[in-house]
Amino acid sequence: MAKRYMITLAYDGTNFAGFQSQPDQRTVQDVLEKAVNKMSTSKKFVHIFGSGRTDAGVHAFGQIVHFDLENDIPEKGIVNGLNSLLPLDMQIVSAKVVTNDFHARFTAHGKRYMYRVSRGRFVDPFKRFYTGHYKYPLDIKLIEEAMADVIGTHDYSSFVASGSQSSSHVRTIYDATVREDRANNEVIFEFYGSGFLYNQVRIMVAALLEIGNGKRPVHDFLRLYEVKDRNECRVTAPASGLYLKQVYYGSESDKES
Amino acid sequence: MAKRYMITLAYDGTNFAGFQSQPDQRTVQDVLEKAVNKMSTSKKFVHIFGSGRTDAGVHAFGQIVHFDLENDIPEKGIVNGLNSLLPLDMQIVSAKVVTNDFHARFTAHGKRYMYRVSRGRFVDPFKRFYTGHYKYPLDIKLIEEAMADVIGTHDYSSFVASGSQSSSHVRTIYDATVREDRANNEVIFEFYGSGFLYNQVRIMVAALLEIGNGKRPVHDFLRLYEVKDRNECRVTAPASGLYLKQVYYGSESDKES
Repeated sequence: MAKRYMITLAYDGTNFAGFQSQPDQRTVQDVLEKAVNKMSTSKKFVHIFGSGRTDAGVHAFGQIVHFDLENDIPEKGIVNGLNSLLPLDMQIVSAKVVTNDFHARFTAHGKRYMYRVSRGRFVDPFKRFYTGHYKYPLDIKLIEEAMADVIGTHDYSSFVASGSQSSSHVRTIYDATVREDRANNEVIFEFYGSGFLYNQVRIMVAALLEIGNGKRPVHDFLRLYEVKDRNECRVTAPASGLYLKQVYYGSESDKES
Repeated sequence: MAKRYMITLAYDGTNFAGFQSQPDQRTVQDVLEKAVNKMSTSKKFVHIFGSGRTDAGVHAFGQIVHFDLENDIPEKGIVNGLNSLLPLDMQIVSAKVVTNDFHARFTAHGKRYMYRVSRGRFVDPFKRFYTGHYKYPLDIKLIEEAMADVIGTHDYSSFVASGSQSSSHVRTIYDATVREDRANNEVIFEFYGSGFLYNQVRIMVAALLEIGNGKRPVHDFLRLYEVKDRNECRVTAPASGLYLKQVYYGSESDKES
């Protein structure tokens, strides 16, 4: 019987046209499937299943995928074998044999995203693909106050990009933090929630930066939850600052690392 | 009379074919000269002069260049103007009007280079262009001991790449340090010296890593200074880990930042 592998994957999203397979594009799924199928002894094409898509330019430290292999390869062999086949902008962090009822997407309980914003008048050449950038003044205390309104269950219709296929826009955010990394002149957001809508984190970050700059009132999120209108949040922070940090499953996998 | 500007320049070397102008290549000099000449009102082409070349893929936080402009632009205008014209992988950090006897190359007293080595079995996708990589065990104490032999004036003929045009291979190193950045799983070297030969830092780092791994005796540098033979040091650490951090001039500019 085929073995199911759960893989933790890191990638620099800069040169990928997002996670999902697309014809004539370099995507995370296509590049990883190509490597997995080189290791497979089955004649059938092995598909991989991700915890969810990431957009072009979005990064991951802890994307989770699963796939089934007929040949019996130890976990360490999966890591070493795939890493020797993968390009340098994608890396297998770990591999684990899981039961066949594990599904990277459908059994996920939650996700944690990080968003890095670089400060300063100009974009640091070394950060152009790895952060968003905000050159205007920010009052972090205002952002912190606004983020208290984010915890809990809300309708995110004001924060969803038009491409969303979700039937409901209600999502629960368990934790939301912001901190200044003064050594690197960055502001770093983290959001841990049940799941996120298309572009939700990037639209939230853009609105929170406007609050930090005084362009929006501190408690504007409470109004935005009510009005359910994307026209109230037209700005989307760039993909380059966004990182999928962790996907949460049952208690076994829920180690904060 | 033309004003001379001293510029501190940062660049991500990944997509540059080095500093020096070359036909049909994207170089630091060509990209910067193009921007400078857009700001110049003179009909004569304005050349820029760097403190020295950096190779393809080598980065800089603190490269220094100078050029002369006939039009009178305040220092802040140079920074803002050039940064609006430059691509995102190059950035003007600061600009200063200097006297006409300042020369970025000929009045430099010394340079400081940094070299980042990432550890671990595999290359982190986010570090592939920004570090060298060493997957074998390292004893940092051995490297530290070896680096004590580096301080002072020595003949670096064993550490110079064949392309060097220098008549003398004698150089003085004022300070050389190594430290572990455990949070990022990196080993970071710094070398502050009177000047460096072609590929000297990268060849020294490769030899020091071999010492740290026990492949060379700790005090092998003393022998290498004597034998004056590049065949004794065949390995060159990759360009991606090397950063020109600072160039030193008179007491006025010699602030450690």
